Amino acid sequence: MATGRLVDVYLDLLSQPCRAVYILLTCTKIPHRVHTVALRKGENKTPEFTRLNPMQKVPVMVDNGFVLTESDAILKYLASTRDVPEHWYPRQPEQRARVDEYTAWHHTNTRLRAAKVFILEVLLPAQFGAPVDKTRLKRALSELEDTLDKLESMFLRRQPFLCGDDVTVADLLAVCELMQPLGGGRDILKDHPQLQRWMSRVQSAVGESFDKAHAVLYGIRDRHRAKL
Amino acid sequence: MATGRLVDVYLDLLSQPCRAVYILLTCTKIPHRVHTVALRKGENKTPEFTRLNPMQKVPVMVDNGFVLTESDAILKYLASTRDVPEHWYPRQPEQRARVDEYTAWHHTNTRLRAAKVFILEVLLPAQFGAPVDKTRLKRALSELEDTLDKLESMFLRRQPFLCGDDVTVADLLAVCELMQPLGGGRDILKDHPQLQRWMSRVQSAVGESFDKAHAVLYGIRDRHRAKL
Repeated sequence: MATGRLVDVYLDLLSQPCRAVYILLTCTKIPHRVHTVALRKGENKTPEFTRLNPMQKVPVMVDNGFVLTESDAILKYLASTRDVPEHWYPRQPEQRARVDEYTAWHHTNTRLRAAKVFILEVLLPAQFGAPVDKTRLKRALSELEDTLDKLESMFLRRQPFLCGDDVTVADLLAVCELMQPLGGGRDILKDHPQLQRWMSRVQSAVGESFDKAHAVLYGIRDRHRAKL
Repeated sequence: MATGRLVDVYLDLLSQPCRAVYILLTCTKIPHRVHTVALRKGENKTPEFTRLNPMQKVPVMVDNGFVLTESDAILKYLASTRDVPEHWYPRQPEQRARVDEYTAWHHTNTRLRAAKVFILEVLLPAQFGAPVDKTRLKRALSELEDTLDKLESMFLRRQPFLCGDDVTVADLLAVCELMQPLGGGRDILKDHPQLQRWMSRVQSAVGESFDKAHAVLYGIRDRHRAKL
């Protein structure tokens, strides 16, 4: 265990996976230092950041010289090397496999589909000043609906959290994605009481780190509402 | 360790992730029993299979009543619970994090992009009898090229395998995806000598299980060639 050692993380809290890393770090009190990389200012494309991560993406973690990318891997590494409650990433093979199963599924489902709605409703209009493409948005919302149904009927069918009886890194990755469309004023869980209750459980489990992580997104939501 | 226990796997060897699981099982001699689920015959949609995996997808693993989906999770679970050489999924945190980093990246890069080319060149024409959509294929090939460049310039930059000096489950997932377009007669590594050398190293590491896993795909390639 490298409990006391300070870990450096490079984050933009408007990025969903960055928020998941930030929440784990703050709610478990892992000693860390945040370096903000503002994507909207292109700070991920500077020569300095590109040397750190040639993929030019956030989050990046540096632990005693060990550079790691991909939020999924960073969360599992931190949960394995730091003295945090074991429920975040259980060591028991079956329980751990449940977390690996969700995270593998996550990338091409929850992540892709919730992000798509945010990109269509917020990012593209902001970047190009064009109106929202209603046809593409409708299709993206329908695909997201399929993912939300699966989250409820498969993963949350018989348990309070995505991978069992306690919160894991999988819940952090999922919750941060499902919050993202809120930036466009859209509450995608409106008609999903089961997912709403799950989200409340995750929020209770991580305490004030949830709102701290989402402060930037709340700001975007408020500005979006003011414009309407 | 549950070394001696027989594990059941439900596979279609035309599915890339199924082949990765099959190769690990056979080349490490994990006692197992293969149940073929022919996707083209809709065997993944029978009531019986749907009870096993409501997602109706392969691969599925059943280990002493524990049902697990997602090839990424299955490979890591098998490497962790069976007496196989540790290099497949190293226990040392930094080395393990490298595997988790690649596999996280894999889902929305190598997997999505190589599969797209196969879908456009083989699956859709076979399903609908329509000619290949050249515009979409051109875009898919260009996106795949970007992924191949990243595999070479990022993951294989300074090492023989994707995650270090030895073969891991990450290489199995990647190699099975990069083989898939061969079903349409397309060798996507033609202009990528670095990836070709890597693929040869993976083939040497897994021995005859490579060709056994790909026999069905070779058959499709040969029928495709005969039609031209």
